[in-house]
Parts: sequence; structure tokens; C-alpha cells
Amino acid sequence: MRRTLLLVYAQPEPSSLTRSFAAAAVETLTAQGHQVLQSDLYAMRWKAVLDADDFPARADPARLSFIDESGHAYANGAQTPDVAEEQRKLLAADAVIFLFPLWWYGIPAILKGWFERVYAYGFGYGYQNQGNRLRYGDGALKGKRALLAAMVGGGERDYGPRGINGPLQELLFPVTHGCLFYPGMDVLPTHAVYGVNQLSREQIADQLHAWRKRLAGLFDETPIPFRRQNGGDYPDGHQLAGHIAPDMEGIWAHLAAPSSPTPRPAMTEAAAQ
Amino acid sequence: MRRTLLLVYAQPEPSSLTRSFAAAAVETLTAQGHQVLQSDLYAMRWKAVLDADDFPARADPARLSFIDESGHAYANGAQTPDVAEEQRKLLAADAVIFLFPLWWYGIPAILKGWFERVYAYGFGYGYQNQGNRLRYGDGALKGKRALLAAMVGGGERDYGPRGINGPLQELLFPVTHGCLFYPGMDVLPTHAVYGVNQLSREQIADQLHAWRKRLAGLFDETPIPFRRQNGGDYPDGHQLAGHIAPDMEGIWAHLAAPSSPTPRPAMTEAAAQ
Repeated sequence: MRRTLLLVYAQPEPSSLTRSFAAAAVETLTAQGHQVLQSDLYAMRWKAVLDADDFPARADPARLSFIDESGHAYANGAQTPDVAEEQRKLLAADAVIFLFPLWWYGIPAILKGWFERVYAYGFGYGYQNQGNRLRYGDGALKGKRALLAAMVGGGERDYGPRGINGPLQELLFPVTHGCLFYPGMDVLPTHAVYGVNQLSREQIADQLHAWRKRLAGLFDETPIPFRRQNGGDYPDGHQLAGHIAPDMEGIWAHLAAPSSPTPRPAMTEAAAQ
Repeated sequence: MRRTLLLVYAQPEPSSLTRSFAAAAVETLTAQGHQVLQSDLYAMRWKAVLDADDFPARADPARLSFIDESGHAYANGAQTPDVAEEQRKLLAADAVIFLFPLWWYGIPAILKGWFERVYAYGFGYGYQNQGNRLRYGDGALKGKRALLAAMVGGGERDYGPRGINGPLQELLFPVTHGCLFYPGMDVLPTHAVYGVNQLSREQIADQLHAWRKRLAGLFDETPIPFRRQNGGDYPDGHQLAGHIAPDMEGIWAHLAAPSSPTPRPAMTEAAAQ
């Protein structure tokens, strides 16, 4: 089945692993018969900062409310062309792959700013003027797949369950859950490569091979089982119902089944002593 | 005791709560006799994107390695003036306060890019050419205090222990632990204001009052008890020793004492059934 994929990547150096992964994705997916759209953020000189210049036709010239102006620009076709174009690409895509080096335990600023600018009110949030009702599993990007491909400088054990940096899944939860699942996408487990600056030529070839294999099965994978806001687990739209994972708190409570060996039960007072 | 504080803030709108908090901080801290430095990122038109323009005198013109070029520029006084100036401010400060609206569950791109550019190799990481040895409690900013002041659009219960967004402390762990504790700062518990777009005039006054009170005691507060890499809990510099919090995994395992009601024990196989 012919599908459309969008690659969003954030690394300017042609010889970087990020760009090698992007090139391999273009090649592999095209060879599979898919259509591949690309957003090469550095080459596009993507404007990273959300500011007043994003709203040339202001609803309120006296006071800059990002929510109000974003909603106004989106609803009135008054967005900047770069933002509108990225929204068109997202809507055209069946799956979106984000490739980036992990910098300071998160996505690079240029990619963070892509979310901030492209996710207009009415599009990325506030969908259908329903406030917070159509989010986390519902939204403008519902049914599309999303995948993070993170190139990590540090070693894998530093990101393990007891690694000093914290587990990568927890560090990236604000992106997987907060940026991708939020507007409705089905998020696949993050594809991480560790120790990227120490890889031998052979190890790089192995990593690229594993990446191509993963891409081949992208539409057959099981997404991270994040709980849908409107699936019954959050009756008030804000908090987990008492009977849902009653002993758990925090990030892992929002997964319907443990996809990791480290789900997190809440500590009872007795256990905390 | 007269001290120097640096305020770094990321909101362009004069009437925003972020800027009201920044103005209140300048006033309160100055009245206390402290010196206040400011980095008003939007007013400075801070360059958010780390790219080749950051390295006008390249070690290797053929290939852009951010680590290598950053280390080269830092060691040779070849950094851009804006980056060098922020490093000087950081070194002069006894405490650093970051004020920002929470956007997509993280710091705004302009602030993320501040860390990426200002934290040069040799300064923010790779301190004293010791690789990863002097980090998490040791580093160029050791002994300074750091505080995040986050202006949050959503309501507090959405960020509670079982709130749908995930707990704010977990969402900001990549910043508190990964960006602030990493180069040695003592990080204070995040100051959060929720539902910022729905506050009445009276509630705003109350929030500003609470903020001024908090500032008055900034140097007496107990920091988040993050475990120091070189304090004995990570004998190999990568993972927690087996006898340290033996039943815990993930973010909360890196706090020496529960500062939250929701520390996270690892799930035993029995408990997971």
C-alpha cells in the first residue's frame, strides 16, 4: 500500500548519523513505493522562535497573546507561509519521523520551535474549538503514526533504568506523549542509537541496517499504549479514574500496559518509610 | 549578604505573568541589596539555533562536529560575543532564575537554544577536559543556585501525581537534572503557577506576593536532593550502585530522599502481575 511519510530532521552536518539515517529513510521508503516529504530544518533555515512576527495580522495589536493570535491566524488563513506549509505536510502524511541529535536531554531548539510554531491553536491544540476535550488520542493528526529517531552521544547504560541520566523513555515523554500523542498520533517506541560519536564504520553500517529493517515494518508495529483521554480512563478529562492503575503515579501510569520493564507503582506510605 | 543573581526569561509580552514575575524579582532582589543581571532573551533577539555560524574560526572547516568546534572555540577565545557574555553572567551569578511559559511540556525553543549555545564544551560539559567525570553536582557552575519559574497554561490537577499531562517535576527533569544540576548547580524545587490565562487580578496579586516571599528565602532553601555523580552512589559514573535505592528505577531513583510524595520503586515481578 502506497503511503506518504514526512521526515523532519534537525542536523546540518552532511556526514552526521542523523542525516545518514534521513537519507537511508528516503531511499528505503521510496523503494517501498511510498511518497516521502521532507523538512530539513537547518537547510530550510527554519525560524525557531515563536514571536510577534508569526502574526502579521493581529487580532489584538496591543497585547500579544500567543494562544489568541495563533487561533486567529489559523482560522483566518493569516499564518506565515512556512507554518502553513508544514501543516499541509503533516495533514498529507500517514506517518511522521523525527530525526535529531539528543541535546541536553531533549530535542534541539530548532525542532522544539517547529512544534511551537506549527502547532497552532485549532490545529495542534484547541482542535475544533473544543478546548482541551479533543487531545491525547484525538485531534487533527489522529490515526497518523509518529516515530522519534534519537542520536544520543552518551552510552546506553547511562540511559538505562538505573542510569545516571534517567531512562530515555522518561526524558522524551514530554515529546512522545506531550507533542505527538497529544494531537492524536499513534507513537511508536523511540528508535535510539547510543554513543554515536564512538561508532566504528562497521557499527554505523549495522545501525543503518537495523534502521532500514525497522522502517520496513513501520505500519505493522504496535504503538506505545498511551491511554486515550476519551477512552474512559480519565472521566473528568484531567486525572486517571481511581480504579485505573490504582497503585501507580507519574509518567508510567499513562501507559495502558507496561511497554517497559520499569512501570511505576505509587509508593504506599508504609513502603516509603 | 550582597549577592549577584541572573534572571533569564523568555516571554516578549510586557503584560505577561512571566514578565511581571521578572519585574517583581528585579525589584525585590534589588531592594534586598543584591545585584541583578538580566537576560531578556526576546529583547536580546537571542539566536536560538546552534549552527555553523557559532564557530567563525573552525578547527575543521570540512566537517561540523558541534562538540569539537564548541570545545575549540571555548578554549581559544573564539566564541561569538553573545555566548561569551552569557557565560560571564553565569560565572558572576550566585543564583540563576529562569522564567518562562511552559510550551509543549518544556522550555520555549529560545531558552532551549540558550542552553545549547551557552553550554560550550569545556564550560557546560567536558569540564576541565575530564570527559564525563565532572558532572551532576560538579562542574563550572558548582555551588550556584538555580530555580525554574514556570508559567503553566493548564490546571494544577492535570500536572498532579495522576494528572493526564504527567507530573511537572517529571516533565522538567531533563532541565532541572539534565541542564542545571549537570554543570554543578544546586537546583531548587520548581516554582509553578498554573492556569495562568484564567487568573483574576486578585489571584495574580496573590501569586506575585507568594513569589516575592519565595525570593526572600532563596538562599536558605533546601535544594532538590539530586544524587551527586561523585558522591559515591554511582561508583562507575554511569549507573546507581546496587545497594543505592535498590528497589527504584527511573527519574526518582536519582533523588537521595523523597522530595515528592511519589517516589518510584521498581516493580517487582510479583507486583507486576
